[in-house]
Amino acid sequence: MGELLTTPSETSSKRRRSDGERSRAAILYAATQLATVEGLDGLSIGRLAEHTGMSKSGLYAHFGSKEELQLATIDTASEIFVREVIEPARAAEGAARLDALANAFLSYLERKVFPGGCFFAAAQAELDTHPGPVREKLREASRSWFDYVERQVRGAQEMGELRPDEDPAQLSFEIDAMLKMATAMFVLHDDAEALDRARRGVEMRVARAKIAG
Amino acid sequence: MGELLTTPSETSSKRRRSDGERSRAAILYAATQLATVEGLDGLSIGRLAEHTGMSKSGLYAHFGSKEELQLATIDTASEIFVREVIEPARAAEGAARLDALANAFLSYLERKVFPGGCFFAAAQAELDTHPGPVREKLREASRSWFDYVERQVRGAQEMGELRPDEDPAQLSFEIDAMLKMATAMFVLHDDAEALDRARRGVEMRVARAKIAG
Repeated sequence: MGELLTTPSETSSKRRRSDGERSRAAILYAATQLATVEGLDGLSIGRLAEHTGMSKSGLYAHFGSKEELQLATIDTASEIFVREVIEPARAAEGAARLDALANAFLSYLERKVFPGGCFFAAAQAELDTHPGPVREKLREASRSWFDYVERQVRGAQEMGELRPDEDPAQLSFEIDAMLKMATAMFVLHDDAEALDRARRGVEMRVARAKIAG
Repeated sequence: MGELLTTPSETSSKRRRSDGERSRAAILYAATQLATVEGLDGLSIGRLAEHTGMSKSGLYAHFGSKEELQLATIDTASEIFVREVIEPARAAEGAARLDALANAFLSYLERKVFPGGCFFAAAQAELDTHPGPVREKLREASRSWFDYVERQVRGAQEMGELRPDEDPAQLSFEIDAMLKMATAMFVLHDDAEALDRARRGVEMRVARAKIAG
């Protein structure tokens, strides 16, 4: 699952393990939280210094630039997403894993793992019109998630649980659509009914793709 | 359809019709375009002056503040949305209007009526965590669109075309979900297949809600 949802940026894999490692992780956690409220583009070293109470020079020692900070923040958000959404759904198999993934995602929204909703939905909507390495990494995360859902559909087809004539990309699109809609409605309107509607929508859609029996 | 998608802000309804009216409309059109690329929050009078080549003092004569400019920009975007999405679908009735609405929306995306995708999806994702009158107006627009889709579902039920046991809010949620997903994928990945998937998804979903006959 190394490719989910992003591969660590070169700078972050080259970095030396050191005493600063834990503090780096704490800073990046704070950065993911701040980014969903104020925007990933609003995430400057100066703003993060204000928010964490650290010195700007201390932050520059961890991250050489705003862009490096943004890329590392996306890596951290990916780790959190994998832990909160992908891992919990692994207990289920086949078609049931699709429902489990949807439930894990909706729980991640409901528990406000990121205070501004899904980190990726927020960052993608914000930066989809801003070319550059940050958008490239967000695209990679989006593709990686979409491909992951699609592989689960194919897996359920191979297990003989889902109809072979279901187009995996179409079904993945529809499942993810329910989750995107729930994200938008839950964050904008604080509407918990949206979570129920998405859950019901995914369940009905997956049920319809099942081989009767 | 006066309530779609927002009611004009008080300042804009109090404004005097004048020779400046046409120039105001042109400025607001430019503002809607800029907002989907740079963000509605990035839409300051200074930035709009740069973009349109007008003087800041000239813009201040039209809009007293950044917030007033943002609210008026949302009103203009609503007018454009009604003209591009709601009006074209009026030719169809009952269940067919749901497909027509989806097609009109997807065409509005594909033709890049706003260069950064759907004005409302972009602005809502950006400002959903920023309390204030601008978010309030975006919420109102979101509710208004959602209610509009739901009324079309009820209308089709009353005409006996859709099953009475379909929950209108659930069906509206699922239709809108396909459109939101298409928006996200089309803007982030420039992926025209997403438009086809959304079209197919809505068609299949509406077909499933139809009374057989």
